[in-house]
Amino acid sequence: MRILVANANTTVAITELCAAAARAAAAPGTTIVAATPRFGPAVISSRAENIVAGHALLELLAEHAGQVQAVVLAVSHDTALEAARQLMPCPVVGMTEAACLTACLVGGRFGLLTLGGVETYRELIGRHGLSARLSGLEGLPLTPQDAVRDPARAEALVLEGIGRLAEQGADAVVLGGAALAGLAAKLAARSPVPLLDGIACAVKLAEVLVALDLPKPRAGSLAPAASGRESSGLSPALAALLRG
Amino acid sequence: MRILVANANTTVAITELCAAAARAAAAPGTTIVAATPRFGPAVISSRAENIVAGHALLELLAEHAGQVQAVVLAVSHDTALEAARQLMPCPVVGMTEAACLTACLVGGRFGLLTLGGVETYRELIGRHGLSARLSGLEGLPLTPQDAVRDPARAEALVLEGIGRLAEQGADAVVLGGAALAGLAAKLAARSPVPLLDGIACAVKLAEVLVALDLPKPRAGSLAPAASGRESSGLSPALAALLRG
Amino acid sequence: MRILVANANTTVAITELCAAAARAAAAPGTTIVAATPRFGPAVISSRAENIVAGHALLELLAEHAGQVQAVVLAVSHDTALEAARQLMPCPVVGMTEAACLTACLVGGRFGLLTLGGVETYRELIGRHGLSARLSGLEGLPLTPQDAVRDPARAEALVLEGIGRLAEQGADAVVLGGAALAGLAAKLAARSPVPLLDGIACAVKLAEVLVALDLPKPRAGSLAPAASGRESSGLSPALAALLRG
Amino acid sequence: MRILVANANTTVAITELCAAAARAAAAPGTTIVAATPRFGPAVISSRAENIVAGHALLELLAEHAGQVQAVVLAVSHDTALEAARQLMPCPVVGMTEAACLTACLVGGRFGLLTLGGVETYRELIGRHGLSARLSGLEGLPLTPQDAVRDPARAEALVLEGIGRLAEQGADAVVLGGAALAGLAAKLAARSPVPLLDGIACAVKLAEVLVALDLPKPRAGSLAPAASGRESSGLSPALAALLRG
Amino acid sequence: MRILVANANTTVAITELCAAAARAAAAPGTTIVAATPRFGPAVISSRAENIVAGHALLELLAEHAGQVQAVVLAVSHDTALEAARQLMPCPVVGMTEAACLTACLVGGRFGLLTLGGVETYRELIGRHGLSARLSGLEGLPLTPQDAVRDPARAEALVLEGIGRLAEQGADAVVLGGAALAGLAAKLAARSPVPLLDGIACAVKLAEVLVALDLPKPRAGSLAPAASGRESSGLSPALAALLRG
Amino acid sequence: MRILVANANTTVAITELCAAAARAAAAPGTTIVAATPRFGPAVISSRAENIVAGHALLELLAEHAGQVQAVVLAVSHDTALEAARQLMPCPVVGMTEAACLTACLVGGRFGLLTLGGVETYRELIGRHGLSARLSGLEGLPLTPQDAVRDPARAEALVLEGIGRLAEQGADAVVLGGAALAGLAAKLAARSPVPLLDGIACAVKLAEVLVALDLPKPRAGSLAPAASGRESSGLSPALAALLRG
Repeated sequence: MRILVANANTTVAITELCAAAARAAAAPGTTIVAATPRFGPAVISSRAENIVAGHALLELLAEHAGQVQAVVLAVSHDTALEAARQLMPCPVVGMTEAACLTACLVGGRFGLLTLGGVETYRELIGRHGLSARLSGLEGLPLTPQDAVRDPARAEALVLEGIGRLAEQGADAVVLGGAALAGLAAKLAARSPVPLLDGIACAVKLAEVLVALDLPKPRAGSLAPAASGRESSGLSPALAALLRG
Repeated sequence: MRILVANANTTVAITELCAAAARAAAAPGTTIVAATPRFGPAVISSRAENIVAGHALLELLAEHAGQVQAVVLAVSHDTALEAARQLMPCPVVGMTEAACLTACLVGGRFGLLTLGGVETYRELIGRHGLSARLSGLEGLPLTPQDAVRDPARAEALVLEGIGRLAEQGADAVVLGGAALAGLAAKLAARSPVPLLDGIACAVKLAEVLVALDLPKPRAGSLAPAASGRESSGLSPALAALLRG
Repeated sequence: MRILVANANTTVAITELCAAAARAAAAPGTTIVAATPRFGPAVISSRAENIVAGHALLELLAEHAGQVQAVVLAVSHDTALEAARQLMPCPVVGMTEAACLTACLVGGRFGLLTLGGVETYRELIGRHGLSARLSGLEGLPLTPQDAVRDPARAEALVLEGIGRLAEQGADAVVLGGAALAGLAAKLAARSPVPLLDGIACAVKLAEVLVALDLPKPRAGSLAPAASGRESSGLSPALAALLRG
Repeated sequence: MRILVANANTTVAITELCAAAARAAAAPGTTIVAATPRFGPAVISSRAENIVAGHALLELLAEHAGQVQAVVLAVSHDTALEAARQLMPCPVVGMTEAACLTACLVGGRFGLLTLGGVETYRELIGRHGLSARLSGLEGLPLTPQDAVRDPARAEALVLEGIGRLAEQGADAVVLGGAALAGLAAKLAARSPVPLLDGIACAVKLAEVLVALDLPKPRAGSLAPAASGRESSGLSPALAALLRG
Repeated sequence: MRILVANANTTVAITELCAAAARAAAAPGTTIVAATPRFGPAVISSRAENIVAGHALLELLAEHAGQVQAVVLAVSHDTALEAARQLMPCPVVGMTEAACLTACLVGGRFGLLTLGGVETYRELIGRHGLSARLSGLEGLPLTPQDAVRDPARAEALVLEGIGRLAEQGADAVVLGGAALAGLAAKLAARSPVPLLDGIACAVKLAEVLVALDLPKPRAGSLAPAASGRESSGLSPALAALLRG
Repeated sequence: MRILVANANTTVAITELCAAAARAAAAPGTTIVAATPRFGPAVISSRAENIVAGHALLELLAEHAGQVQAVVLAVSHDTALEAARQLMPCPVVGMTEAACLTACLVGGRFGLLTLGGVETYRELIGRHGLSARLSGLEGLPLTPQDAVRDPARAEALVLEGIGRLAEQGADAVVLGGAALAGLAAKLAARSPVPLLDGIACAVKLAEVLVALDLPKPRAGSLAPAASGRESSGLSPALAALLRG
């Protein structure tokens, strides 16, 4: 089984970090294909960057349509997730979506911890219809650069944040954002509740969807658009896929 | 006051239709500047087209940043609305958002009627936090082409749909989609409840926001991103605006 | 265009304060007609006073029916709003309703700050179906008298409250209550997020509704009651309006 | 124990109907004191009439403050309920509130059936925070006069409506509106699910609250307002009670 | 009237405590029959113990079917409540359900205070569809043993917790858990808001349901199961009752 | 990897049916261990039977604690799911929970189809916090016996129900109840939207949880109860597990 791990920003180092995390989680027969968009923001930290990255991501996905059995979106905002799900002929899984759904299998309510602002994550969980399962959000006053510069301090702050979330009723904590990739495993023993890594969860759920071999919807809001759709200025692969 | 009416698809005829509706609604001192994206789908009828159109729309907006006092998004999916709001130095209003908020000023719950599927509109109203005000959705089994070919039949079907929505508790009905532009005024006398046209509502609310002269947020999820953001492959204007 | 700015308590000084704020916000062609009820509480600070004020307000409105193009309710509890909307032949806008809907056009979630208790405002926002857009409420331990006696201290406390609301996720803050009228403009430059003044927002939205020239609902929960309704002990104007 | 059964409209026949229903439900030691407002609408069938009736009801209650151990509001809109609860020195129960809470003790979700429009009942149940327990509403196309003229047909239509509500998931049905008073008992044997009569439920719950002898809140949104409140044009008893 | 007060754990001392509270609340003509399960946990403090106790409780109830006019479940988790309601030929009331519904009759939102963790109570209130009425939960870091050892300190901590709940918007506070039985009456004078005791509320509401003499549902999710149900290994009384 | 597939009723034929479905879905290295409770209802079709089955299921699970790597609850009511999750030292997955979460990975909203009443499934989806993802429920007027007697008619009715759910906005449909096991695969080609089989989804998600190797929560509502818990009348294995 080939799973595409698609970054939505143009920073290859993040693609590689995510690919490594995906390979660590993948089953023996799974091949991870990692890819980086051709254009877009180096890092997504505003709503507009997220929109642009959505286009870049769909262009990237279109190039792999038919060549992979599933797609994992390696971007914590689950950028363009529903669009990718409708567009692609295979299953598509978002990393925060995957971590949240897995958290639902582990306990009652879950918390989410990230670096920086939390409101777009609150909106994302609302978009996934999971607000009733969310106990709280923690946004640490750290940049990804801070986390790289002083990892020990970052880990300490993350553990404190996890502790606050657990006190507020979290039975599990989703770690959001690429800068925290790999931290779930590292801090597991020191955390009072299970920590969920988006990439790992997404790879496993993508394998599940491939194994279940569900047909794509032929009706409803995820059904393919009618064929013959016209567009201009898009990459040939994306234009062809939109055309049906 | 100059208001940009920005289409999100590449069909100039639709831009012109929306511009005309905007001019009809605008106050005497308001100038409507209409614009069409450089690339993207001819019409948005899938989730992926909506994502691509979001990028095209932001590129279009960036070219007008600083030259208009407000922006109206002339696309019934309120494509890239929050991103545009964060990105642009002026107020930004979505047409369906505007119609729904205006409907809240008119009655208790409102309905929404459109051509084709309704689920993405249900999601949109949820994204706006207005699900509690939504009484129901009607998706007529008509294409825009059908509506052009046989307008009398289309009007009859629209009035029937409005009747069903009113029976289910709608005190007002939002007409969604460019194909229905202008119909609100035309059918007003024959409808049991007020009909809301997205473009008209959005132009009026944009004028309100300009008049209130509110500062843009300096904190929170709509605050400008930190300056110095890097990107690649974007239009110069959009890249510059993202850079801060 | 003539807009009635109707106070719901009997304190003329508050009517005048609200009228001044309304005139500052009104468009050039708009005439503000201010009015004070004939009976009722001097200030509304209990639920029972709010009910009595509702009757007084409707009596006041009935005297102006047909003579104004729109009504702004100058009372932060949006007292008798839906009733006035059904009763009057013109649009009616509540000041807190208006500020909350305008806040929705500015950012994701909004906070509300007032003097004293917040629970009735929480209920009001729930009645408007906007709970999902509310990030939090701040009730300052100040009376309106305190605010008048020591305005510098009041401003400092208000700014601190705004800061707490912004930290909890507010992209905008509604200032609730007549005692805070005018403060939004005064504190705008020192606030991290936009501040919304109910009277200003309500006047602008009333102008929008007049411009849109929507018919009143002929069906549904806002339709006029059947004619011939009997009552006793009411003012002639109100009795006549209820009679249809 | 003396319980005041307070009508909110001025039709004495309805007061007497409700008083009879209350006496039928009351425990042996309970005395029902029935009262009709001095002014207001003959019947409440619009939102404005409901507001006016709220004032009339509070005036009526104020005359009985200290002379009854509890109050039942004999009006299906639970008019001025929270205000009465804050104002009066004794427990206050609304008839639809009471029926809905009793329905919660009987099954999972409940339906509500009434004559005429249902949207204000939907809002009322939302105001009581019970929307999650509501399975559906049925508004029969009958006036109270129709029900009096042809009771057999009315009963048949009511039973059909109950049947539809049961099919949609109601485990119990609240009969709303004075015109249906007494019908719950009459139709009990022919209904697939229990029928709840607002007056009967309210009298029993009022007896419970008297028996529990709970103190009135001294803090929070139901606490008495600070003493010294000024008002004008109110009845002496109501003005005195508001003054504290 | 005979009301069964059924404990769900096997500790007879708790049964007796609850029976005493029930007798103190019961009307003159009500006889309280107290009972303890034959098997199960000594105290319920985990989810699995609650499930086992549910079976034990139903077995206990089955022995009293037909011999009591109502059942009060003397367990703060409302263990097996809906099942008991469907199974038994008489009304069944849960103690926390009863306290929460009574709290709804007293004020706007209510808080809940208990010893230990609060998440299962949050879930319980969600199961009852009352989340919109819940202002907050307080879980004191005390064991029941602590409360017995140093009652003065426990009372002080409980009052502090009540104070925090009132500050967060509670108009009334439900005291959850058998260890707090009797405390509501004791602390009433020192609490800013009414305190609700589950056993007292449940006994009163059970009396109401008996007085209303509602038929059991013949349709819907609470209707008796079709007769002829087979089971094995159950007590004869429970097996017979399930068989119909 | 050994996964226990635990039936909650005592009908061995259903255990075997579920075991076969589980084996069909399991990965090559997964061994399915099927088990049937020692006591309880032959089939669960009332709320009381579900409670009793919960105890029987926990007793069954306790016998396998430490001998399996995960548990799948082969009962469509997700009986005792959270209790089992807290009690067992390994992951536990419910079949309807699993199908609903998988449906979330496939489309926007999902429907659920079952034989008989739907209200307890509506409650179950609410308990899982997924009501916002539920588009509707279909309860076919068929018994499991009907489905066995005339499978062609049953399939036709199921496909009609799926069609109605798809029209109401379902992007995927969960088939609930053991009587429909295996039907998802059989009808896949004839259904407009993907069909989800609870057993297959649960087995795959159980494999995911084993692969992720998450620690059990040490804090929160799923943490093990304090050791030393006493009980009586339980099976030795369950008593020991509760004792800690």
